[in-house]
Amino acid sequence: MKRFLHSKFNALDPYDTSGELESMNGGYIRLNTNESPFELSEKVMSNAGEAARALNFYSDPDCTRLREKLSGLMQVNPSEIVFGNGSDEILNFIFMAFCEHGAAFPDIAYSFYKILAKFHGVDFLTVPLDENFRTNPDDYKNFNERTIIITNPNAPTGIFLELKDVEKIINQNPDSLIIIDEAYIDFGDGSAKNLIHKYKNLIVVRTFSKSRSMAGARLGWCMTCEEIARDMNNIKNTITPYNINAMTQAVALAVLEDEESTQKNIDTIKKIRDDTKNKLREIGFEVLDSSANFLFARHEKISGEEIFEALKRKKIMIRHFSRPERISNFNRITIGTPEQMKIFLEAIKGVVSE
Amino acid sequence: MKRFLHSKFNALDPYDTSGELESMNGGYIRLNTNESPFELSEKVMSNAGEAARALNFYSDPDCTRLREKLSGLMQVNPSEIVFGNGSDEILNFIFMAFCEHGAAFPDIAYSFYKILAKFHGVDFLTVPLDENFRTNPDDYKNFNERTIIITNPNAPTGIFLELKDVEKIINQNPDSLIIIDEAYIDFGDGSAKNLIHKYKNLIVVRTFSKSRSMAGARLGWCMTCEEIARDMNNIKNTITPYNINAMTQAVALAVLEDEESTQKNIDTIKKIRDDTKNKLREIGFEVLDSSANFLFARHEKISGEEIFEALKRKKIMIRHFSRPERISNFNRITIGTPEQMKIFLEAIKGVVSE
Repeated sequence: MKRFLHSKFNALDPYDTSGELESMNGGYIRLNTNESPFELSEKVMSNAGEAARALNFYSDPDCTRLREKLSGLMQVNPSEIVFGNGSDEILNFIFMAFCEHGAAFPDIAYSFYKILAKFHGVDFLTVPLDENFRTNPDDYKNFNERTIIITNPNAPTGIFLELKDVEKIINQNPDSLIIIDEAYIDFGDGSAKNLIHKYKNLIVVRTFSKSRSMAGARLGWCMTCEEIARDMNNIKNTITPYNINAMTQAVALAVLEDEESTQKNIDTIKKIRDDTKNKLREIGFEVLDSSANFLFARHEKISGEEIFEALKRKKIMIRHFSRPERISNFNRITIGTPEQMKIFLEAIKGVVSE
Repeated sequence: MKRFLHSKFNALDPYDTSGELESMNGGYIRLNTNESPFELSEKVMSNAGEAARALNFYSDPDCTRLREKLSGLMQVNPSEIVFGNGSDEILNFIFMAFCEHGAAFPDIAYSFYKILAKFHGVDFLTVPLDENFRTNPDDYKNFNERTIIITNPNAPTGIFLELKDVEKIINQNPDSLIIIDEAYIDFGDGSAKNLIHKYKNLIVVRTFSKSRSMAGARLGWCMTCEEIARDMNNIKNTITPYNINAMTQAVALAVLEDEESTQKNIDTIKKIRDDTKNKLREIGFEVLDSSANFLFARHEKISGEEIFEALKRKKIMIRHFSRPERISNFNRITIGTPEQMKIFLEAIKGVVSE
């Protein structure tokens, strides 16, 4: 029993950031958190500096200019967008306020869902991926108003669920709110975003952390019908009215004004990803087909943990998951720069031939 | 009945940012939100730009360098500090997780407390300030484990509660958690911060938004005993592990490395505040003694609303509170630059002599 902490929070299970912290400080090549390896441009940096000049004033609580720009690019209405301090905050709003009848998500998915569900006392079901680590839409039925969360492409598998299958899940669950977490969609294809105009029970979650190289700026957002967006913005305005700081708004605007660089970075990552996949397969790895900026791979002979530890000794950090059991021999490898991946491939070749 | 919103949130009462939005966009002199009128230095701006360079990586979830620097300045341990995305987030953590037995705060205080209490379903009592708008420590007794929140100096009154009275409230309520919200303390004196080493039921909340000119960067924090700090950081790490973006961390560090500028700005504000108070008194205003960066004033003949509207027509925005009734003839006036206050004083002289 904690002295002042509310009794409902006595069994907190925080998100584990120790790997991130270790890799930040240890001089590692960081292939463990699905960040972009590409820095932002000089232009963007100068925008951040310029925004810092007027930091004495509160930031725009509505992110007006950013909202306008983004809605134009995405072809949705400004009133259909909600911004969060990272997509973590968007997901937190969802688990806090839109899961009254429980939640359901795949057994292998972004680990944060389970943490948030537990924190908010949301009753949740996990739905096993099939033997090929794929989501079978037929498994998503009769959920009685449970909120359904699908990561697409999935993490940590990287596997993409076709848009027709996403739509099938929506159609099968007209009384549920459906969340499609598209953190990695820019590395795949087939966003569900246009479906927000067809269905009034859909939220498509996005982030600037991956394809747009802004993990450190903390900007997530979602698209949904106007009614749900209004409810979410009311939540936001009640507990954190100025949630997006002025520098992040300025940087994001500058990044959106340079779609060409973003697209070039995405194309580079996809090309390196597919090359790396082939090279890993040549040396005995099973590698899932990835539509994200990472690969999920296990070796036919060496355990996942051994590979993780051996690379770590060589100052390369990838991500190992000890749970659930059936992925415990896999590692998730973020796609870095060509130079980083060359070093990685040399190192992993060394590991498997030892 | 909203379609997907949790039924417990059906009566949301969001914080009203409309005045802020209007003043941002209307070309007003902004004396309405207690921001600092002083921009940050070139040095700080260049730090923000430099931080934007590495935005592709996640921000440090522990704010390690900032924590070290701040704990040194404040003479507390790094483990006694919690950072939030604005002090709003710190307050949100408190109402969400540290008010199981209810809350109590003055009837006239930062309006956000009531909003957060309602949102989190916290039973709250309001304790009337006395006839001089002062907190009487004897009114804070027998609260049976309710969390007690005191803004010091108070807002919107600006009145400071002596440290011995703060300590009296703590002593009278050994079973309650006591929150001292010191958003404006740098413009007064007598912080309760050293008491965190004496009492294990105290949280002192601070912000970079006021004296440190960083409202737009969103950085709040608190000091408390290690046990409570650990619980709060566990909450933080559970729902928003990367809550402070990298640019804000960099800017705050640069600001803390230049305490001289901060102190100079504070001294300037205090001097202008006291001058303005005297000049307002000369033209028929009752002005409360302020230990903050704003004044709270009513005129002997003209209603608060009339003054507010007349200044607004002259493109000067101050803050009017229509509730509670007994402050409805007051306005809160943020202290701006000498130039802004000269324009303000000319304008308000015109209003009262019309």
